[in-house]
Amino acid sequence: MWLIYFLCAIASASSLVTIQKPSYEPTWESLDTRPLPKWYDKAKIGIFIHWGVFSVPSFGSEWFWMSWKASNQSRYVDYIKNFFPPGFTYQEFAKEFTCEFFDPDEWAKIFKNSGANYVVLTSKHHEGYTLWPSKYSFSWNSMDIGPKRDLVGDLSNAVRKQGMRFGLYHSLYEWFNPMYVDDRRSNFTRKTFVDRKIIPEMKELIEKYRPDVLWSDGDWEAYDDYWKSTEFLAWVYNESPVQDTIVVNDRWGIDIPCKHGDFFTCQDRFNPGVLQKHKWENAMTIDKESWGFRRNAKLSDYLTTHQLITTLIETVSCGGNILINVGPTKEGIITPIFQERLRDLGIWLKVNGLAIYNTTPWKYQNDTIGQTWYTTSTDSVYATTLVWPKGGILKLTKVKTSFAKLKSFSSVKLLGYEKELTVKVIADEVHVLLPSKDLVKTDWAWVVRFKYNELITEYI
Amino acid sequence: MWLIYFLCAIASASSLVTIQKPSYEPTWESLDTRPLPKWYDKAKIGIFIHWGVFSVPSFGSEWFWMSWKASNQSRYVDYIKNFFPPGFTYQEFAKEFTCEFFDPDEWAKIFKNSGANYVVLTSKHHEGYTLWPSKYSFSWNSMDIGPKRDLVGDLSNAVRKQGMRFGLYHSLYEWFNPMYVDDRRSNFTRKTFVDRKIIPEMKELIEKYRPDVLWSDGDWEAYDDYWKSTEFLAWVYNESPVQDTIVVNDRWGIDIPCKHGDFFTCQDRFNPGVLQKHKWENAMTIDKESWGFRRNAKLSDYLTTHQLITTLIETVSCGGNILINVGPTKEGIITPIFQERLRDLGIWLKVNGLAIYNTTPWKYQNDTIGQTWYTTSTDSVYATTLVWPKGGILKLTKVKTSFAKLKSFSSVKLLGYEKELTVKVIADEVHVLLPSKDLVKTDWAWVVRFKYNELITEYI
Amino acid sequence: MWLIYFLCAIASASSLVTIQKPSYEPTWESLDTRPLPKWYDKAKIGIFIHWGVFSVPSFGSEWFWMSWKASNQSRYVDYIKNFFPPGFTYQEFAKEFTCEFFDPDEWAKIFKNSGANYVVLTSKHHEGYTLWPSKYSFSWNSMDIGPKRDLVGDLSNAVRKQGMRFGLYHSLYEWFNPMYVDDRRSNFTRKTFVDRKIIPEMKELIEKYRPDVLWSDGDWEAYDDYWKSTEFLAWVYNESPVQDTIVVNDRWGIDIPCKHGDFFTCQDRFNPGVLQKHKWENAMTIDKESWGFRRNAKLSDYLTTHQLITTLIETVSCGGNILINVGPTKEGIITPIFQERLRDLGIWLKVNGLAIYNTTPWKYQNDTIGQTWYTTSTDSVYATTLVWPKGGILKLTKVKTSFAKLKSFSSVKLLGYEKELTVKVIADEVHVLLPSKDLVKTDWAWVVRFKYNELITEYI
Amino acid sequence: MWLIYFLCAIASASSLVTIQKPSYEPTWESLDTRPLPKWYDKAKIGIFIHWGVFSVPSFGSEWFWMSWKASNQSRYVDYIKNFFPPGFTYQEFAKEFTCEFFDPDEWAKIFKNSGANYVVLTSKHHEGYTLWPSKYSFSWNSMDIGPKRDLVGDLSNAVRKQGMRFGLYHSLYEWFNPMYVDDRRSNFTRKTFVDRKIIPEMKELIEKYRPDVLWSDGDWEAYDDYWKSTEFLAWVYNESPVQDTIVVNDRWGIDIPCKHGDFFTCQDRFNPGVLQKHKWENAMTIDKESWGFRRNAKLSDYLTTHQLITTLIETVSCGGNILINVGPTKEGIITPIFQERLRDLGIWLKVNGLAIYNTTPWKYQNDTIGQTWYTTSTDSVYATTLVWPKGGILKLTKVKTSFAKLKSFSSVKLLGYEKELTVKVIADEVHVLLPSKDLVKTDWAWVVRFKYNELITEYI
Repeated sequence: MWLIYFLCAIASASSLVTIQKPSYEPTWESLDTRPLPKWYDKAKIGIFIHWGVFSVPSFGSEWFWMSWKASNQSRYVDYIKNFFPPGFTYQEFAKEFTCEFFDPDEWAKIFKNSGANYVVLTSKHHEGYTLWPSKYSFSWNSMDIGPKRDLVGDLSNAVRKQGMRFGLYHSLYEWFNPMYVDDRRSNFTRKTFVDRKIIPEMKELIEKYRPDVLWSDGDWEAYDDYWKSTEFLAWVYNESPVQDTIVVNDRWGIDIPCKHGDFFTCQDRFNPGVLQKHKWENAMTIDKESWGFRRNAKLSDYLTTHQLITTLIETVSCGGNILINVGPTKEGIITPIFQERLRDLGIWLKVNGLAIYNTTPWKYQNDTIGQTWYTTSTDSVYATTLVWPKGGILKLTKVKTSFAKLKSFSSVKLLGYEKELTVKVIADEVHVLLPSKDLVKTDWAWVVRFKYNELITEYI
Repeated sequence: MWLIYFLCAIASASSLVTIQKPSYEPTWESLDTRPLPKWYDKAKIGIFIHWGVFSVPSFGSEWFWMSWKASNQSRYVDYIKNFFPPGFTYQEFAKEFTCEFFDPDEWAKIFKNSGANYVVLTSKHHEGYTLWPSKYSFSWNSMDIGPKRDLVGDLSNAVRKQGMRFGLYHSLYEWFNPMYVDDRRSNFTRKTFVDRKIIPEMKELIEKYRPDVLWSDGDWEAYDDYWKSTEFLAWVYNESPVQDTIVVNDRWGIDIPCKHGDFFTCQDRFNPGVLQKHKWENAMTIDKESWGFRRNAKLSDYLTTHQLITTLIETVSCGGNILINVGPTKEGIITPIFQERLRDLGIWLKVNGLAIYNTTPWKYQNDTIGQTWYTTSTDSVYATTLVWPKGGILKLTKVKTSFAKLKSFSSVKLLGYEKELTVKVIADEVHVLLPSKDLVKTDWAWVVRFKYNELITEYI
Repeated sequence: MWLIYFLCAIASASSLVTIQKPSYEPTWESLDTRPLPKWYDKAKIGIFIHWGVFSVPSFGSEWFWMSWKASNQSRYVDYIKNFFPPGFTYQEFAKEFTCEFFDPDEWAKIFKNSGANYVVLTSKHHEGYTLWPSKYSFSWNSMDIGPKRDLVGDLSNAVRKQGMRFGLYHSLYEWFNPMYVDDRRSNFTRKTFVDRKIIPEMKELIEKYRPDVLWSDGDWEAYDDYWKSTEFLAWVYNESPVQDTIVVNDRWGIDIPCKHGDFFTCQDRFNPGVLQKHKWENAMTIDKESWGFRRNAKLSDYLTTHQLITTLIETVSCGGNILINVGPTKEGIITPIFQERLRDLGIWLKVNGLAIYNTTPWKYQNDTIGQTWYTTSTDSVYATTLVWPKGGILKLTKVKTSFAKLKSFSSVKLLGYEKELTVKVIADEVHVLLPSKDLVKTDWAWVVRFKYNELITEYI
Repeated sequence: MWLIYFLCAIASASSLVTIQKPSYEPTWESLDTRPLPKWYDKAKIGIFIHWGVFSVPSFGSEWFWMSWKASNQSRYVDYIKNFFPPGFTYQEFAKEFTCEFFDPDEWAKIFKNSGANYVVLTSKHHEGYTLWPSKYSFSWNSMDIGPKRDLVGDLSNAVRKQGMRFGLYHSLYEWFNPMYVDDRRSNFTRKTFVDRKIIPEMKELIEKYRPDVLWSDGDWEAYDDYWKSTEFLAWVYNESPVQDTIVVNDRWGIDIPCKHGDFFTCQDRFNPGVLQKHKWENAMTIDKESWGFRRNAKLSDYLTTHQLITTLIETVSCGGNILINVGPTKEGIITPIFQERLRDLGIWLKVNGLAIYNTTPWKYQNDTIGQTWYTTSTDSVYATTLVWPKGGILKLTKVKTSFAKLKSFSSVKLLGYEKELTVKVIADEVHVLLPSKDLVKTDWAWVVRFKYNELITEYI
């Protein structure tokens, strides 16, 4: 053991500066130089969970409070008028956020079986209610009113037990926190809210739960200097206990999204369809209308499994991770329709995961004909078709070019089917002859893997 | 117009007696002679709805009260102990049976689109709470506490607007009604409960809502003479406003089920697998564990669409109707997982309904090889296979016999596929060559229709 | 008729036992012949308790439901509109009728210390909710929802333990019971409600709790033949287990009050101020505005102790009993202001009770001058003055006459003061010289006792 | 520093007018030099109001939360166990703090009629819940949950409209605020709670409501340097908008009570019985057991009017003000028993107020014989006896001395009685002959006023 220390000593002595961990400055120029922790790009699939007091009305969306009290949308105003006593306040919902059936291990298994590699929970949404017993949110947190549990702690343990990474969503602004409202009234010249609430609270979160992702949100009303974003991130990168593992997104103030951050989310359900220069994430929802649970959602409001898999394939082909949102109920249940979508995704990935995990975008993202998207790994190109091709013949144009360059592939197979497939080159097209459909293991999308003769180390 | 009267007069004159409606005696011998109203056998598919105060805990099953207070099952006792104040009573749940999202027209559309032809609602389950403002259940009904609506009336209107029949489930016994408990204590020599509550209540139901089905239940602790079943049914058949249209089931006292009634239900989820001599109904559930909604049901607790369609096919082949149960939430929602099963069933029936509606059992119910079940109509035999046969060749043995007798079929087709299929007779087997699977419209089960050369009028 | 008596005479003669009880006919003529059980007239003071679901809103009065839903009084309509969700029903109050602090022994002591000899509880008010687990009011009684206790049973035991008599108030009609509403719609030609609910329920009450008083109410919309009052009372007098002890009031149908019954109540707060021919009772309230508790009652709404004692004295002088009403809270508390009034009454009675209990009216009820009321016992006349007379000299005119007749009194004393008082006869007046006020034990009213020389056996 | 004083000196010199306000240093030496605003000593009687979330359980006392969760007293633990679901938290009570009947004008009238001159409300008790919409207590204040009103603002307006002064109670510590708990854990070396919560909150209170009294409490776990008391008070005295009118009490940290502050409260119900050197206040309760309302308080738990008036007289005679506490209900009602005590006090003061308001202690506080207490005004000495003396002769010893010194009084009268009283000097005693008791206007206590021949300007 001492030998190692000895060698290290020499190493550090001989390169006095370079072994020294870089210390980031509180500027975007400096922060942007941080390399992305490797686990994140490989993970590809995460589960997003929107859960909070909004899960009690579970009506309209998780923006219930705002839609009702600030936008005064009649649908919300009427809902309250029709079913609650006059003068009812949003805070009175909190008591009903009971979570009595919340079984974090059960949740973790559902997520694990979906094929996800990380899970991100709303530790605090714009309503300000914290899902952990925060020192800075007395009587407006999950220990004091509602579930009387540390939901963040309970879920983080269960998720990590399943070998997944655990991240936390956190809203910077709080719609109706009078300290914030007051700062805004000063055109953000006062920073009482940031100093007394936000910074201490984020540090508490990171020190207590050591999240692998910090998914910031609610930044859009003020510039990053109000939020003290760069100072905070410098602390995260330089001093926090998760400085080596954490990834943060890009929502840190006006004009920051899509520009700075370990990964970009740009806007909700961001799915550009073309290759991006910087690592990005498509945060999207299974319920097309809402991030939070809606009791009165209809079947048609949910993505079909085919739509979900389509979005996954498009996203990964263009270099993104996908963060699939589910909204649990106030009782703590992931409802069966969500379970079914996640289970189906897991079934598909068990057969076709090779085309997703640990891949990188290929030089082409999708084919000019059909509905086929590409990814690549060190030894293969994966062509995933979203429809079963007419007559069982998958026609591709982009692969042809590669054929020319690399001479040939060593193997062409359908994932989940043992035998080699027949491939014909007809003019500019490569035709892959698929087996009879009733012999195929999965539904929804099918992956043809073109394996190279030799290992490749660069984008072809 | 007078001409018609004239003809009628002649008719009645000429057959003085036969036009006279038979008057049923209050004996099973007499009641059993009543012909089954024709609509019922043709309808084949009904939707069963279990809804009531038990939808509030929506825990365990609709037998919550009994499991908790009479059987003292620890799961229920603990649930109450953990989440409710000491001394909490079942009646206190009623206030939360709010039904605020109950949209009867929406429900009716969901049912209609499933392919169902009738709907049966629990007007009153064993808890005694009535889903209509009964004169005999003051303060323990849906108008006085909970939804403050006539749920029976609202749903019956919506269902009928969609052209479906509407029926009512009704429990004879009420677990904790002290009048009933008292009668039981007298070994049913006292009949206070039946006289003052049950008979008046059932007459009120029938006169007010004119149900097409009266689905009796909760009969098993007493003989039919206690329940005054035959007297009541004689009134239903002779005097009630629905004497011509109503069908009743067989749960009218100890030893009556499977013996008397317009149709037999025998026991829950009755699915004998062989032809029955008397019209019967398979009342079954999509949630395998419960008739009432369960908030914490898992995806695996729900029948898959394939299992549901399998049960339908088995049931109809053996002469039964199927009554598919869904459990709405206390808010009045048919949850998406139920919607999905019903929607898929409807999709299947749109293509394959010919093999179900208006059919009768064939002389064989299923085939000796494979998983194929038969039905027949006036011009066809339908062979429905529950698995896509290996190599696309459906092998049948039972059809061979018919071939021999009738010489040939005029046409052999797969429902949902235009072209005639190739049929080969090989030894004792008939082989039907199905098209490529990717050309077929539906999933789950496939129907081959053998059309006769000429109309047949008898069972072949 | 005489023949029957003749036969009876023979029968009783032949069966030795001369105690043959008379058998009452179900006619008022016959029922009116029943002698008043002796305890009642001697008791003089009873406590009336109005308690029920109306104690939950405890707003306006115990007629809350009616004022809100039938009279649509804006005060009630607005109260509900302002503090409850739309569609709120009266039945939803029941859950809050918790009675968690109800200590029947505590209540009984408070009543005992007030000097009362009997207690009458609303077993069921016009709302229909029963304070005992009635067999005929499933889910609308105090065991099923609310306190989960047999309030009638618990209080009856405690009251009797204190040596007091226990009675039950019972409302014949129930405002919103659909069976009653339906009977009324038939102009009371149908009697479903009376047959199935009221008669069985009253018999249950009497057999189970053996009340000393049955205080009927809610009779005024129908004649006694609808209520089957005479049949029922004949059963009470002839067969019931309380045939020897019970007293009933006079509210048994239109035109019956003030005419038939063991004692007359005529109307609420009946206090005629002159001698009545028939035993009567003044049922009155300490809260001038309501029988049920009112959370927002003001101090000025409560009778002062002086007003209460005044009413007592006036009532007893004219031959009445007083039934003093208190309204407990939904938690089961007799609030301190009620306690104070009752305690003060008890303090007064401890000194002055001789002028109340076991007395009868005198030939004069009150004096022509001053505010003095009379009672008499076997050996005395009591003159009670409601004001401390000017200069300490109580002037009386009515006593003079008696002096003349009886020659003299053996003793004239102030109750609570040891020494004999000086009496002067001046013209038509008798002047009694009271001691200095600061030597007197009680407040509010003062009794001068004129004791006769010898025992008297008739009204003088 | 001396330069500033020098400049100030010049400034004040040059502007002749001595109105230069002294600037207090943040030290007790300096703060103690502030003169007591004059209104306070003259006012003599204040009303204290304990109202908050503790008014919801209204069980035990306003220390409910602490008794239950920290002391684990079985009475409280059992109460929660018996009537609430497992896991119930104190915060869940807040929703029931409805205050629906709170009529601030009604309250103000009740207080005014009691004879009080100021009113002090618990703006925030140890539970931390604020009765105003504080910027520093998001979701744990009376606007966000419970009454949805600014209770502090509403009451202050009503009280001032009645010409009374308005003050605010404020608790420094908050039992369960995690910021405070955390500071305590650091032995109060950290001051996060004081900096971020307490100081901003107290300034907000003072600037928004301009209270005439700041009644600090909850100081006892930490020294005044933790609470930054002297800095804060220097701000109050030098800069706050109420610098000229406000009076503060003495609860500002360990060892401060009874030593520093505008008036001393020392301990609850402080009533020393002897003259104090510094202005003080007797903060006491009508409910002997609790400051907050108790639903199950018994009549015997309340002070009688005589006890209340006794305490008032003792307090004022010794130089104190009295602060009489009432506990309103969660609905916002001052219950009738409290109303009665206050009304009786007002009745007494209307006759006898001369002996209380604007008085100062006399050289003797009480007499050696009897139960007589003294006060004095510019022209009189008031002797108040708590019992009606035997034979109507009030015997005094202390007045004799004054007689000797001043020769004679110009007038000796009983307040509320017109005529001069006969006075006899017998040995060392002065005997005042009171009129017949039935001629006297009030009860409970009687004041003899000795009026001097000439105006006096010093203590005699």
